[in-house]
Amino acid sequence: MQMYDLIQKKRNKKDLSKEEIQFIVTGYTNGSIPDYQMSAFLMAVCINGMNHEETAALTVAMAESGDQLDLSMIEGIKVDKHSTGGVGDKTSLVLSPMIASLGVPVAKMSGRGLGHTGGTIDKLESFPGFSTSLTPEQFIKNVNEIKMAIVGQTANLAPADKKIYALRDVTATVDHISLIASSIMSKKIASGSDVIVLDVKTGSGAFMKTYEDSLALAKEMVQIGTIAGRKTYAVITDMNQPLGNAVGNSLEVLEAIETLKGKGPKDLLEVSLTLASYMLYGAQKANSIEEARKLLEETIENGSALDKLSQFVKAQGGNPDAIYQTDLLPKAKLVEDVPATDSGYVTSILTDEVGMTSLILGGGRETKDSIIDLSVGIMIHKKLGDKVVKGESLATLYANDEQKLANAILRLQKAYIIGQEKPKSNPYVYTVIS
Amino acid sequence: MQMYDLIQKKRNKKDLSKEEIQFIVTGYTNGSIPDYQMSAFLMAVCINGMNHEETAALTVAMAESGDQLDLSMIEGIKVDKHSTGGVGDKTSLVLSPMIASLGVPVAKMSGRGLGHTGGTIDKLESFPGFSTSLTPEQFIKNVNEIKMAIVGQTANLAPADKKIYALRDVTATVDHISLIASSIMSKKIASGSDVIVLDVKTGSGAFMKTYEDSLALAKEMVQIGTIAGRKTYAVITDMNQPLGNAVGNSLEVLEAIETLKGKGPKDLLEVSLTLASYMLYGAQKANSIEEARKLLEETIENGSALDKLSQFVKAQGGNPDAIYQTDLLPKAKLVEDVPATDSGYVTSILTDEVGMTSLILGGGRETKDSIIDLSVGIMIHKKLGDKVVKGESLATLYANDEQKLANAILRLQKAYIIGQEKPKSNPYVYTVIS
Repeated sequence: MQMYDLIQKKRNKKDLSKEEIQFIVTGYTNGSIPDYQMSAFLMAVCINGMNHEETAALTVAMAESGDQLDLSMIEGIKVDKHSTGGVGDKTSLVLSPMIASLGVPVAKMSGRGLGHTGGTIDKLESFPGFSTSLTPEQFIKNVNEIKMAIVGQTANLAPADKKIYALRDVTATVDHISLIASSIMSKKIASGSDVIVLDVKTGSGAFMKTYEDSLALAKEMVQIGTIAGRKTYAVITDMNQPLGNAVGNSLEVLEAIETLKGKGPKDLLEVSLTLASYMLYGAQKANSIEEARKLLEETIENGSALDKLSQFVKAQGGNPDAIYQTDLLPKAKLVEDVPATDSGYVTSILTDEVGMTSLILGGGRETKDSIIDLSVGIMIHKKLGDKVVKGESLATLYANDEQKLANAILRLQKAYIIGQEKPKSNPYVYTVIS
Repeated sequence: MQMYDLIQKKRNKKDLSKEEIQFIVTGYTNGSIPDYQMSAFLMAVCINGMNHEETAALTVAMAESGDQLDLSMIEGIKVDKHSTGGVGDKTSLVLSPMIASLGVPVAKMSGRGLGHTGGTIDKLESFPGFSTSLTPEQFIKNVNEIKMAIVGQTANLAPADKKIYALRDVTATVDHISLIASSIMSKKIASGSDVIVLDVKTGSGAFMKTYEDSLALAKEMVQIGTIAGRKTYAVITDMNQPLGNAVGNSLEVLEAIETLKGKGPKDLLEVSLTLASYMLYGAQKANSIEEARKLLEETIENGSALDKLSQFVKAQGGNPDAIYQTDLLPKAKLVEDVPATDSGYVTSILTDEVGMTSLILGGGRETKDSIIDLSVGIMIHKKLGDKVVKGESLATLYANDEQKLANAILRLQKAYIIGQEKPKSNPYVYTVIS
């Protein structure tokens, strides 16, 4: 087999076989196929496309390019959740203890990554002492005993995806549905779960800005999961404004705790319950989505989800007291309100800009080596459709630096579009693909 | 300007400006744009195409990437000819002395290259002592005094084209009309002529196998030449069988000499006269193609073309006696006929295979370092539509190695398709684009 012929084939709109795609992924990962051939191939894919079988073959080949988590020592059906990312997205913190408390094993591998806030692991480090440095044995033991454990992502998870992504990033071949879908799914498949629930965000703060693109990505990922033999659901949820009110690491942890106490924002609760319902149903712990939802709601009412969070934090070295005495969580020194510059209705929120405000405050990573300030962030008071009077507080900022705070205030004010007509409201959850 | 954005633009089927294309060519030539970005761009071009302005801009940018021949010291309108290549193509040897004898300066830069026979320079080295190592001053002086000189191609002619071609060669981006046309034309434009006549071959022995592809290439090259300010003609000529009867270096020189004596094969004479007519007309030495043709025919009848060849060979150190005593040209030791394996009509000739037969005998270069045997080759006796009886000679082979000769006989026999119906004959010249 020659890479030249495979590039030519894709250039001529021909389909590649599983073996041919395997050859490309293996060759590129081990260096026998050079960057310049791979980038020509990726461009041909971007323009001429790949069918579902090709996309699934690419995904599986990338998943198999490095370490694959062996979860066979864990009892029961393993369920994983993945979000395409958004601002204020803390559903993992909410739903993991809920489903774990119902006996579904949560064996989560999570990254840190770049972004406007840290990843799930960073957020959890708001609990003093919390650590994800578990040995594989401890990890398995924790999951079997308390049904919930989180470890950092191994460096060798889907290395082909890492290498291909880096090349796409410099050759204008990032935004293609098959390549995006296979990149996400390769890591999920390598992570070894039986059931995958995808939270595909749509809107101004999402990777996919339009509903059509989000739907296409959701369908592609479900196809891949299905071909790869994993039960896969994709839930399309709104990201035209931050999810919940908190943006920032310890602030989001606090909001997740409040939600598990039954006092969380409605949108966060609704999205978390929907995702968790599919996870529970997929794990065969409920006979229907409705039954699953009822069981999940009970874990909030009876406090079992909150207890599960406490148990989990303790098992990974964190101080669980912070769950009940939330002033033990990291707190910023400076607290300031952001006044509205106009009166009217919040007609639009530039959600990406809200995320940038968090990044400016120090809540996220600009580069791999950035140090995150867990205490800073935003508590939003006005959301889409809310009435606002000039001078009223849109949000409260938490900061540790006067200059950063001043910049953040201006940035957040610009993220709010205030008009005279009340906008139509968006659903929290649009649809589910399976 | 960022290469990333330009790749993206072409990926999205947008047109690039002259400045953007200049940026790409300059950046890739000086190494600031890496191979993997260039190959992604080239793939986008191959799939989404370039318009005529973009193609011309690419051509000119490549022409300007290295040395450009300054022919301003040469008097008169400078005319150049280029062939897309074929088997038995020795028109340069025939038409150059014809037009030089009529006062049109032939200032030719020629390559050696790979192929089934050598290039024009290799062929001319059949004249004992002939050399193309002229200083620029000698070159100009010769052209001004005797109207004809040939030098080897400078290493720094269109280096961008060289680098881009090497990348296309390994990324399945060779066969795209805009890229092929710009590659050819960049070198012609850098060579400094005012008028360019292109011989675009079509058929089984040509780079372009179909008439449609040949026509498209011809039109693209004429467009480029016109946009770049050069009067350009493209003549589409037949290459469904070798041109003339001789294939091989000294054999082709011999056939060219015979043609200048008025005893050459009809197809070679016709194609040479047509190309030369446009060169003469372009150089404003004739008021019409018909007048040009008449003038050219006279150079054969009155011997002035042959005398010009003699003068030229002498001026570059060669022994001109070989023109009149052709047994001074290199001669192979072994001479053997190739018998027909069937009776009937020659219905088809796999012309590329005839070329391969010459290569097997040692008449061409397989790699850059191959040494050419100028004496070997093929004299064809049967052409398309000719009647042939089993055992009759299809061609005579000239060789210096028994084993190579044996292989060559089998190869040539397979190149002849003999059927029972006389095939329709092809014109020598199909059409002219200007």
